[in-house]
Amino acid sequence: MESYRMRIAEILSEVKKQKPLVHQITNYVTVNDCANIVLALGGSPVMADDREEVEEMVSLASALVINMGTLNSRIIDSMLAAGKRANELGIPVVLDPVGIGATTLRTDTVRMFVREVRLAAVRGNMSEIKALAGRAARTRGVDSADDQTGGKEVALNLAQGLQCVVAITGARDIISNGEKTIFIDNGHPDLAKVTGTGCMATALVGTYCGATADYFLGAAAGIVSMGLAGEKAAGELAGSAGMGTFRLKLFDHVSNLTPRELQEGAKLHEA
Amino acid sequence: MESYRMRIAEILSEVKKQKPLVHQITNYVTVNDCANIVLALGGSPVMADDREEVEEMVSLASALVINMGTLNSRIIDSMLAAGKRANELGIPVVLDPVGIGATTLRTDTVRMFVREVRLAAVRGNMSEIKALAGRAARTRGVDSADDQTGGKEVALNLAQGLQCVVAITGARDIISNGEKTIFIDNGHPDLAKVTGTGCMATALVGTYCGATADYFLGAAAGIVSMGLAGEKAAGELAGSAGMGTFRLKLFDHVSNLTPRELQEGAKLHEA
Amino acid sequence: MESYRMRIAEILSEVKKQKPLVHQITNYVTVNDCANIVLALGGSPVMADDREEVEEMVSLASALVINMGTLNSRIIDSMLAAGKRANELGIPVVLDPVGIGATTLRTDTVRMFVREVRLAAVRGNMSEIKALAGRAARTRGVDSADDQTGGKEVALNLAQGLQCVVAITGARDIISNGEKTIFIDNGHPDLAKVTGTGCMATALVGTYCGATADYFLGAAAGIVSMGLAGEKAAGELAGSAGMGTFRLKLFDHVSNLTPRELQEGAKLHEA
Repeated sequence: MESYRMRIAEILSEVKKQKPLVHQITNYVTVNDCANIVLALGGSPVMADDREEVEEMVSLASALVINMGTLNSRIIDSMLAAGKRANELGIPVVLDPVGIGATTLRTDTVRMFVREVRLAAVRGNMSEIKALAGRAARTRGVDSADDQTGGKEVALNLAQGLQCVVAITGARDIISNGEKTIFIDNGHPDLAKVTGTGCMATALVGTYCGATADYFLGAAAGIVSMGLAGEKAAGELAGSAGMGTFRLKLFDHVSNLTPRELQEGAKLHEA
Repeated sequence: MESYRMRIAEILSEVKKQKPLVHQITNYVTVNDCANIVLALGGSPVMADDREEVEEMVSLASALVINMGTLNSRIIDSMLAAGKRANELGIPVVLDPVGIGATTLRTDTVRMFVREVRLAAVRGNMSEIKALAGRAARTRGVDSADDQTGGKEVALNLAQGLQCVVAITGARDIISNGEKTIFIDNGHPDLAKVTGTGCMATALVGTYCGATADYFLGAAAGIVSMGLAGEKAAGELAGSAGMGTFRLKLFDHVSNLTPRELQEGAKLHEA
Repeated sequence: MESYRMRIAEILSEVKKQKPLVHQITNYVTVNDCANIVLALGGSPVMADDREEVEEMVSLASALVINMGTLNSRIIDSMLAAGKRANELGIPVVLDPVGIGATTLRTDTVRMFVREVRLAAVRGNMSEIKALAGRAARTRGVDSADDQTGGKEVALNLAQGLQCVVAITGARDIISNGEKTIFIDNGHPDLAKVTGTGCMATALVGTYCGATADYFLGAAAGIVSMGLAGEKAAGELAGSAGMGTFRLKLFDHVSNLTPRELQEGAKLHEA
């Protein structure tokens, strides 16, 4: 695992050097957080979701992040057009299938999207990833109601099926590219008490994948970065501080994260 | 009033136990705040506003919050469909008629909505509630320009007319279910200096109403919780702290609020 | 310059006295920030973007801010209708042409808008202002990739062409009304590390222009206010504080800004 830790530190250095432009078509709940977390890491976010401009915008970008948190027919068309253009240009596409399994619209849209667009990576909680894999899962709104038993197999199989990196986040995160699978033990339970931490993790995965061709470690770097920020933020809460302060510190710690800290703090394990 | 204070504390315990799923169809200005405040209290927020999925999503929820802060024809259809489905399923619907009276679209949409959908509760400032009641009122953008003279009668009459709980927020809050009316003296003037504190109060009302069948005290609990958070946040401002810090502390204090603090801090009075 | 400094302090006093209603049709990424920064300064924000209500809403307002950060055909119609109505009523229109030059949709929409609607002021970074002026520019997503060489001439010529105030923000800000041009040296590099600081500067320009007929100094006051907040916020960062804390402090310092501080802190220079 030490070589992985060294590599993700190098990819963070690349992010800070390259400042990848990350085009996000995302939900309106956490869109500001998704822009600020990309900036905090060292990337450059751009949001554009109109059918008339997404193909042009994505062609300028180093990565495309598609987040299905608040779907509607207008942006579904835009997501598909941007995804296909990104595929043509070899730009990595990272997907967050928020709430898949909760409604037919979400399930059908995600399934359509992964048939039409080749992904670099997909990140979701266990319920969402199981729903994407076509397994019985219990999604409750946009939160996971499933434990992570059998997660390695789920991630591995879906990664093989979609031929992309699969990242399942939870108490223990699981990353697989269909060949290699690792566990990540960074993070803190308070991350589930703030909206958008999943979306932000996906945005960080997109940012890292915009600066490396190794999407497996790009995904790992994104998940570790969010987890480390959560650990540090939780460790600093005192007195009357609560979830407002915790949320603010997530941005502080992502913006201050150094390659060395990432390397030393990453809790990677063989699955 | 002591029995009311005990009851709202119990309802907060229920929120933390049940973690009610709160489906919100809301504006894009304060949507992130509305999600985070529900999480801070102990509920689980989900935002979905597409006509294709709102009926399915609301059927999973414990409460539906409709906020008219940024209307458009697409989401008006969704609000109506979700509201009707919630009525069929006995899921409480809480309405925030943001800016009613400022434009014809807002006034007409709110009036149509309350004709078609049975409410558990409605929360607004005095201008908005007067406009909903069909009285002369002065709405200035989305802020109230009216004082609260005669507020008890306004709340009581509208509660009888709509057969729901009416909550008027201002320097002194007024809650009526058409039979009982109480005043709430929690809060702080700084709450008017941050956008979304009204929307968040409504979201809290929705969260409490998702955990109790007593919508009168559910509404009271929501209004007291926001007011208490404002009092505590304002009391901690020092040095160069201003409205950014105040806003953050609202989330801190809602997330740290205990049933005991709610019971002891609630300033309820007979009207 | 001393008389300018005195005047912008007076305009801030007017903002706090008049509490101008600022109607914003803006993007969904930074809309919450744009509302909160107007409140922090002392104005009253209202967001409404539906074609059915924008003409009615803008007629209540003291200023209209149009921000093109996330365009779509629905709100382009609304922007145009609101802008024309504002012109009829003599209400100042302030434009933020976010990302013009990045896509054809943005470039065409901004050009259409400035042909159809008379502006009080436009604010952008150097890439955006050059693109608006029809010069070769390099826009990278929504961030400027151009230095400010020749900026005085660019601002002066565009101000003459559009007959409005032009504000170019960057390391050194440039404000011109086609006759007078000044430089502003307030600000801090960290302002580029948080999303929405440009949008917020434009919202502040709109708020000031809603309280004075002198749009040249109204624009200067807005740019100085944002710059001063950035200086103060950056100066207070310590320990583990990062971009989350910096962002929060921007709101703190705008909310605490006094006319005297504005007058004493403004770094204005003849161009």
